Amino acid sequence: VTGTEVLTGRVTDRNGPWLAEQLRRLGVDVGQIVVVGDRPDDLRSALAFLGAGNDLLITSGGLGPTADDLTAEVVARVQGRPVRLDSELEKRITAIVDRLSVRFGGLRNPEATAAATRKQAMVPEGATVLEPTGTAPGLVVPVAGGRTGPPVIVLPGPPRELQQMWPAAVDATQVRALLAGAPELRQRTLRLWGVPESELAATLRRVDGELAGLEVTTCLRDGELEIVSRYDPEAESAQVRLVDAVRADFPAQLFSADGASVDELVLHGLVDRGWTAAVLESATGGGISARLTRMSNGAEAFSARILGGLVVSSEAAVGALDGHCAELVGPASPDLARAMARAARAAFGADVGIGVTAIDGLETVHLSVLTKDSERARSLIVSGATQTARQRIGPVVMHLLRLALTDQ
Amino acid sequence: VTGTEVLTGRVTDRNGPWLAEQLRRLGVDVGQIVVVGDRPDDLRSALAFLGAGNDLLITSGGLGPTADDLTAEVVARVQGRPVRLDSELEKRITAIVDRLSVRFGGLRNPEATAAATRKQAMVPEGATVLEPTGTAPGLVVPVAGGRTGPPVIVLPGPPRELQQMWPAAVDATQVRALLAGAPELRQRTLRLWGVPESELAATLRRVDGELAGLEVTTCLRDGELEIVSRYDPEAESAQVRLVDAVRADFPAQLFSADGASVDELVLHGLVDRGWTAAVLESATGGGISARLTRMSNGAEAFSARILGGLVVSSEAAVGALDGHCAELVGPASPDLARAMARAARAAFGADVGIGVTAIDGLETVHLSVLTKDSERARSLIVSGATQTARQRIGPVVMHLLRLALTDQ
Repeated sequence: VTGTEVLTGRVTDRNGPWLAEQLRRLGVDVGQIVVVGDRPDDLRSALAFLGAGNDLLITSGGLGPTADDLTAEVVARVQGRPVRLDSELEKRITAIVDRLSVRFGGLRNPEATAAATRKQAMVPEGATVLEPTGTAPGLVVPVAGGRTGPPVIVLPGPPRELQQMWPAAVDATQVRALLAGAPELRQRTLRLWGVPESELAATLRRVDGELAGLEVTTCLRDGELEIVSRYDPEAESAQVRLVDAVRADFPAQLFSADGASVDELVLHGLVDRGWTAAVLESATGGGISARLTRMSNGAEAFSARILGGLVVSSEAAVGALDGHCAELVGPASPDLARAMARAARAAFGADVGIGVTAIDGLETVHLSVLTKDSERARSLIVSGATQTARQRIGPVVMHLLRLALTDQ
Repeated sequence: VTGTEVLTGRVTDRNGPWLAEQLRRLGVDVGQIVVVGDRPDDLRSALAFLGAGNDLLITSGGLGPTADDLTAEVVARVQGRPVRLDSELEKRITAIVDRLSVRFGGLRNPEATAAATRKQAMVPEGATVLEPTGTAPGLVVPVAGGRTGPPVIVLPGPPRELQQMWPAAVDATQVRALLAGAPELRQRTLRLWGVPESELAATLRRVDGELAGLEVTTCLRDGELEIVSRYDPEAESAQVRLVDAVRADFPAQLFSADGASVDELVLHGLVDRGWTAAVLESATGGGISARLTRMSNGAEAFSARILGGLVVSSEAAVGALDGHCAELVGPASPDLARAMARAARAAFGADVGIGVTAIDGLETVHLSVLTKDSERARSLIVSGATQTARQRIGPVVMHLLRLALTDQ
């Protein structure tokens, strides 16, 4: 992963994780991810380090038109292949740039643009060109004859461009030949809520002798414990023993044995019951509404289940809820959270109402998930930055919703 | 950065970016970030690779109680230092674990917990212990006498624990001694909206000869172009020339010369005018409300400016807006977006109303930002996944708001 903006933390790398998941589906285990800045020497030494222990290298980024975009050039040198102008490719890039420039009201500097295009059309000898999905082409660059080392797939940095180009990269002859030898690599995920990591460690230690062939990792995230195993299909029975052991020790806490997230379980729970949900939130400023609607992600059956949300960050906002808000006054408390959940149900005509409120600075947050005949409430002490606090609240709301829908 | 969950893309690395920014503030340039899984050999070879060209190494993750947490052990071996049980530290960790276990209703397996605690209290000889901020202690491990190599700071994986431990790491004698030699490293950010990257490349190429001493990177993100320079204070005049050149070529598009984000500019614009804002959104499902309230991040002067938002994902939700929604019927269109912006102003009594609506599947999104005497509208074609589409809409809304507030 190249780019000073990623190395210095201004931009989060989305390509490494995305590629890792694509590779896993193809049976390829990812060895390392290295992030380097826009310094040719650093990219060169990273390629040398990675080339020693891997069968395939992939780069992302550094294919743009500016002077700090050097990836193609460095990869060509490392692979021992001189670059040549591909004038047909140059024409195709020019056509793309011309089309794009219309959006910006025409080209301001045609010579500069032509120079940038020519730079992007320089192709290492013997490399396969991957057609641009933005303006930059990608490459598959095998090592030159007489040298040894893995081929390098060169992909653009913008995640959308990289993702659109990926099928062509996988389809390149050289990459196909490599992948033909990859075995199936299974991955299964278990999720628990309300278990400390040390207790889970005890369970795993107890059955350790029966888990041969599994690479098991555990991870504490958003208040959930995630257990992921990766294995060859031959180790399937070991995986079954792992699931049995975890279920035996934590029957109520194991909420997902097939990798389904709490969001997915909530969504399916709403669909199964034919229920709808609505939110009235202050502390989380739209975060819960955004999470609920985001998880439905456009699917008809799901999005109809989330009726809406009202984000109240001031007294004035309460006015928008005429007639449903007589009780919505006073300091944050479990009672206020319940009144908000009730108002959400009434205002939107929803089956499940969610109320979230907090005392100043998010020190204590009160949550209520209300159905026709049940309430699940929780008060949380969350210190730290608003953003961090919000990240802790979301999962608790989702689990209360899940419990409300499964009647536990 | 250690952890199979990060390497395989299940968890986004938040520690690398956070540490990079902290280090920059201390005048330290980050060389590389390497992500490895929970395999001791991979961690060892990564430490060897990084040790060759850097003055300080930092690890994150792999300090937990489970068997796959191996970082402290591997670092001790690489640095040539045997580990010993620190029994005072063991007692302190035990006290923390006891306190935590109360939350989960007591310890289920005291022996397993004791074993896990002992593992976490094994300290390399001559290392400095960083007190736990969760349950795992951190370490500063210098290389053993007779060997050469940089010291290694060993930090926990959970971002909150790592961030809380960082001041102690920086304060450790060995790290302080290293940092004392670091020069000031300035970083300045310019932001433009509505400029193609190739045009900016032309400007940079034109003034390239005057920019000695600046490390300039450009990055296209959320529809904005970001230009970041890093430099020694002696190169300040070159930075001034860069800003002048960019401003001369793109006077209307350069909206931030001091690194302020569009969100910050909008917030300050609202405060300066004494205006309030409210949102009525369907297509973005709470995303705009969440962004507006998140950016105010608890600051009194700001959060009072965002009155609230209504997320409508169904006809039922419109009922929540009694009396303000006569026009909110019909297919998504620029007119509907304007009616929504008007309803947001009326329902919340806000100065600025924002309306966001879309035709099925988010193909075309209509935006309207309405004040007492102006409207700024935009219709966008956004293809691709809902999530990606939403990420493209947010910045456009923010820029329309910025323009409404600065009267441009």
